[in-house]
Amino acid sequence: IFSLACATVVGTRRALVRGARPLATMSEAASIDSIRAAESRIRDHVVRTPLLSSPFLDELVGRRVLVKAECLQRTGSFKIRGAWSAVSAIPDAERAGGVIAYSSGNHGQGVACAAEAFGIPAVIVMPEDTPSLKIANTKAYGAEVVLYDRETESREEIGGRIAAERGMTLVKPFDDPQVISGQGTVGLEIAEQAAAAGVADADVLVCCGGGGLSSGIALALEATAPGLRVRTCEPERFDDTARSLASGQRERNAAAGGSICDAIVTPTPGELTFPVLRRLAGAGLVVSEREALDAMRHAFLRLKVVAEPGGAVALAAALHRTADLAAGDAVICVISGGNCDPAMFERALSAVC
Amino acid sequence: IFSLACATVVGTRRALVRGARPLATMSEAASIDSIRAAESRIRDHVVRTPLLSSPFLDELVGRRVLVKAECLQRTGSFKIRGAWSAVSAIPDAERAGGVIAYSSGNHGQGVACAAEAFGIPAVIVMPEDTPSLKIANTKAYGAEVVLYDRETESREEIGGRIAAERGMTLVKPFDDPQVISGQGTVGLEIAEQAAAAGVADADVLVCCGGGGLSSGIALALEATAPGLRVRTCEPERFDDTARSLASGQRERNAAAGGSICDAIVTPTPGELTFPVLRRLAGAGLVVSEREALDAMRHAFLRLKVVAEPGGAVALAAALHRTADLAAGDAVICVISGGNCDPAMFERALSAVC
Repeated sequence: IFSLACATVVGTRRALVRGARPLATMSEAASIDSIRAAESRIRDHVVRTPLLSSPFLDELVGRRVLVKAECLQRTGSFKIRGAWSAVSAIPDAERAGGVIAYSSGNHGQGVACAAEAFGIPAVIVMPEDTPSLKIANTKAYGAEVVLYDRETESREEIGGRIAAERGMTLVKPFDDPQVISGQGTVGLEIAEQAAAAGVADADVLVCCGGGGLSSGIALALEATAPGLRVRTCEPERFDDTARSLASGQRERNAAAGGSICDAIVTPTPGELTFPVLRRLAGAGLVVSEREALDAMRHAFLRLKVVAEPGGAVALAAALHRTADLAAGDAVICVISGGNCDPAMFERALSAVC
Repeated sequence: IFSLACATVVGTRRALVRGARPLATMSEAASIDSIRAAESRIRDHVVRTPLLSSPFLDELVGRRVLVKAECLQRTGSFKIRGAWSAVSAIPDAERAGGVIAYSSGNHGQGVACAAEAFGIPAVIVMPEDTPSLKIANTKAYGAEVVLYDRETESREEIGGRIAAERGMTLVKPFDDPQVISGQGTVGLEIAEQAAAAGVADADVLVCCGGGGLSSGIALALEATAPGLRVRTCEPERFDDTARSLASGQRERNAAAGGSICDAIVTPTPGELTFPVLRRLAGAGLVVSEREALDAMRHAFLRLKVVAEPGGAVALAAALHRTADLAAGDAVICVISGGNCDPAMFERALSAVC
């Protein structure tokens, strides 16, 4: 029943790969309706992750800290939500040709997992510096992995070429209304869980790469919990969204890679995601890599969950940028992923800020 | 409303401290009714922990593996359930005098946390070899910590003496109907979550020290999911329950301590818990310390949660004693706690079985 409603969007995506049509128009943009529709499609296939807390974190931060643990999500990150939303929205005949994605790791695992569930082939284009755990997992979901060099090659170009050659549908990592809608289901859950916890007014700190998760959550909260405001969180040197929110236009990062926060390193905010963030998000927050490692250690000690560096930047901002938060007695933050190599985790365990 | 129903039990507990009455009689024993009553008292104060899974674990074990993540529980282990159940069942006037507990760590944190919430003093008697994280956390909940030597001193004697001197109520770690009932709420949740996952017939692997958790779960499952059977899981050298289930009488361990699985090291099964296990549990499962560390590593890699060694023995049994499980296409296991020092966790990350 949803493939009909999404036919236009999918058509747009396919056309994009062939270079024939512009990006989705405003009428096709993600909205609370498309988020609710995505929620209906993915509900039985994703985990409703818990909102965790610890009195030790509350004391450290000086307010209640509620942590949406998307590291406990299927595939180890929130990305399965957007991937399943997008793959399930492709019309059957087109979907049978398979899907392709370019991804720093977590989106690739999400698309590979969804493709395996739908019984279709998948190609995932990943940067060479992707943690080996993410590459191995993606292959384990049955996908073919193609590696590329972040510094010299364009994943968009590679993805577009393979899609055209093999007749596969491209599932973009963030700049796709169905992907944004899937990620927005995190916001629906946060709204419900925050209300159950008695929190109606708080900043919601979200790890931000291209902005699919933060814009999706922002749209969901606008409609269901208007007292909750998204704040994007990024690592130093890759703070394109914070600078873009400050300047009002899409800024770019100087470096293309080389961060331990590999999961949320993108060159610039998305064309579809940035207008949403500009309208709904507060000022962006930026943390150091050391602060991200420290947040991983706190997640280990206090919440008993595994965060990867990029997935810990929102908790890092809660711990280390408290002065920049809106006044209030609570802060919500999303741990967006937990696909961390043991060696990196050992680094975090010995980190002290 | 529940303090009335529990007055006899509480009276028994107090009398015990004073050495005047025998242990609770059969009519006061934990039952599905006392478990449901405990659930009503603790519901708003504990986490309904998720039932996690990973296709990678399913493939390793050759059947569906569903993991009840009590490491995500308030205080980092299931022990808060029994502690809150017991503390909330003490009549107000008596409770005002405070509570005392002897504990290898997690029960102490549970009692300290519940006491703090009720605004009453707490003394926790802990072995000297308790991980420092557990000692620090217990103090952070406002409790006074008294250390003792596992090899030469009796925690029961120390606990009884302080209770008598200061007029405090002893909250025993497992051999108390209200504690067993609180732990049994894990079983109510497993029954519901397994049914939602379509699993009606499976072994339920439970980390076992004194048997409070396993006997509580066994009682809950008997009433709510008769196709689910408890299997106790213990570390080598501390397999008193497995040997007791085999012989039909309560056997003792030769060693008193010195296991990395400190959380579940007790000298012998409980007087109240063992008859329940003898009636309802299958043969006990035993794993090595190395297998427990390997299970911690799998919990990190595949489930993104932190297990402590003692809390990982049930997952270790699922991974390494598959041949000893009942036939079927699923196994459920409880990760009972996640209060692990960083150094121990680093050991687990480099463990290979």
